[in-house]
Amino acid sequence: MKGKNVPAGKLLAFCSACFEKLGLTRQNARLTAENLVFANLRGVDSHGVIRMKIYVDRLRAGGFKPKVRPQVVSEQDSSALIDARHGVGQVAAAAAMKLAINKAKKTGVAVVSVKNSNHFGACAFYAMRAVPHGMIGFASTNAGPTMAPTGGREARLGNNAMAIAVPAGKAPPLVLDMATGAVAWGKIFVAQQEQRKIPTTWALDKDGVPTDDPNAAAHQGLIQPFGGYKGYGLSLLIDILTGVLSGGGFSTQVKTLYQKIETPAQVAQTCAALRIEAFLPLAEFRRRMEGIIQLMHWCPTAPGLNRIFVPGEIEHETEMKRRLEGIPLNAELRGELKALGAQLKVKPPF
Amino acid sequence: MKGKNVPAGKLLAFCSACFEKLGLTRQNARLTAENLVFANLRGVDSHGVIRMKIYVDRLRAGGFKPKVRPQVVSEQDSSALIDARHGVGQVAAAAAMKLAINKAKKTGVAVVSVKNSNHFGACAFYAMRAVPHGMIGFASTNAGPTMAPTGGREARLGNNAMAIAVPAGKAPPLVLDMATGAVAWGKIFVAQQEQRKIPTTWALDKDGVPTDDPNAAAHQGLIQPFGGYKGYGLSLLIDILTGVLSGGGFSTQVKTLYQKIETPAQVAQTCAALRIEAFLPLAEFRRRMEGIIQLMHWCPTAPGLNRIFVPGEIEHETEMKRRLEGIPLNAELRGELKALGAQLKVKPPF
Repeated sequence: MKGKNVPAGKLLAFCSACFEKLGLTRQNARLTAENLVFANLRGVDSHGVIRMKIYVDRLRAGGFKPKVRPQVVSEQDSSALIDARHGVGQVAAAAAMKLAINKAKKTGVAVVSVKNSNHFGACAFYAMRAVPHGMIGFASTNAGPTMAPTGGREARLGNNAMAIAVPAGKAPPLVLDMATGAVAWGKIFVAQQEQRKIPTTWALDKDGVPTDDPNAAAHQGLIQPFGGYKGYGLSLLIDILTGVLSGGGFSTQVKTLYQKIETPAQVAQTCAALRIEAFLPLAEFRRRMEGIIQLMHWCPTAPGLNRIFVPGEIEHETEMKRRLEGIPLNAELRGELKALGAQLKVKPPF
Repeated sequence: MKGKNVPAGKLLAFCSACFEKLGLTRQNARLTAENLVFANLRGVDSHGVIRMKIYVDRLRAGGFKPKVRPQVVSEQDSSALIDARHGVGQVAAAAAMKLAINKAKKTGVAVVSVKNSNHFGACAFYAMRAVPHGMIGFASTNAGPTMAPTGGREARLGNNAMAIAVPAGKAPPLVLDMATGAVAWGKIFVAQQEQRKIPTTWALDKDGVPTDDPNAAAHQGLIQPFGGYKGYGLSLLIDILTGVLSGGGFSTQVKTLYQKIETPAQVAQTCAALRIEAFLPLAEFRRRMEGIIQLMHWCPTAPGLNRIFVPGEIEHETEMKRRLEGIPLNAELRGELKALGAQLKVKPPF
């Protein structure tokens, strides 16, 4: 995103104040704001404050319930099920991750699943919470259906996503955060504007046929899972590990963020934590992580490339830069935030 | 594979007897044979008895130690680390899966990692062992390096693989078993023989440039990870969760099955089990699984297709067929097995 830069702290204070005005506790408002600003800091602007407007709309319309507290409905030594009671996804998932971390401290590993949740922003935000505890973190979410199973032509699976975060010694945490779709819609819209063909692995036309025409994709088409049937399998498995396992919504039962904003979206999430010292001394693990990262970094590159990245590295560098220089927001988004501020009587950060 | 059919039971008895002759206990010989025949039954012939010769060669040369017993070197309530002591991969991984299942019975979920292991065949074999216990099973392995990280041109990652198996009510277990490579070498060799171009997402040439020429791929080229950088990320994460976490080999430390057969290959594996009733009553979970599978099956299909599969379904149908009709083995493979039988004084099954 191009535009004038806003300091992260100011943006955080603004979003946090907006959420407080809508009935969230100070702590939950800040947590939710942190999740959005985290995504912007890491360059994942699609999951950042661009979502403020729909979050505010949903909090007002009833799709997100601002005041409910997530409730643990069952638990064992290494597992738990949380009912988010249609509250803000961030609040429930952060509670799930915290519980998983605490259980993993005692038993080595734990899994906590969340039903009746909502959109929770970037997965990496939760997975990374395990890292300061010397743990590997995992977070996953289902989403309203936007993809067909391989061979199909109707949406039955969301762009379900997962993240894994791993402590990495002197290197920043290694963080794989990926959705199971081949591409974000935004890239197809750009190709449409620029009248460029798209790879046939990106989208289907309205009949379910892979297309290189961005117009055909945009006209009642669907995004394809990444990597063909393997991506379909992963997306389905994430739906099973979140929606099916938790007793929450799955497949077509889940609504997308922008559908029926007055109704809970029946999103489900699953978080997990694995204590490294249950396997290896943490210092040894960290050295080994430095070793495997070096093996990737030092791999000879293909022509025209001069650097190999490990997952999360680009996002980390963007975060370092944006913490210093601020978060670029374009004029449209600035206008949107200003209008929200005016409605909620919160002073915008610019 | 095309060829005359051999009954699975006869093939199993033959392989089992060969392994016994090489010093495995009756139980371990049978387990290892079951793993290979399991792959053939499910149509995954690349992981079946085609591997007998190299297994026999490695058992003789010292790369697989026939008599060692896997040893639990550390454990917590929901985690354990096993040292396979360079024994047969199947033996160590089955022990790991069993331990994970027993721990998950008590705590809800467990993860067991294995170092100093060897090639363990099809991942699904282990993951599926959790299903009769009302659990979701997970198994993963690293492998000798055959892929470059995205942007690289030297092998740094194996065609690392994972499987997840889920009980599914009246439907057969849903089993996602996938390697992280875009394609098996076999398909590139076939394209070479048939002088057909290959998709540019399959392989790199010797300089690390994606190629549609199967000859360029075969001449010092590399397989690409499936789905671009996401497949690279998954492959790296599997290496971390197996090799790095267990204290075993990772990246270039792991040898492929056919390299240095007298030397342990430093493969690592990680298995996990999740007890469904820690989250939901099993009957309810099964109904929900039937529900999500129906949603996939009943999705309208793209033109020319009349059926949508869920992961593991094709393999299940192949298994039903091959259990009745036998496993097809081509003349070359039959000859190879016959020769092994002659060497080991075991009567071949045909």
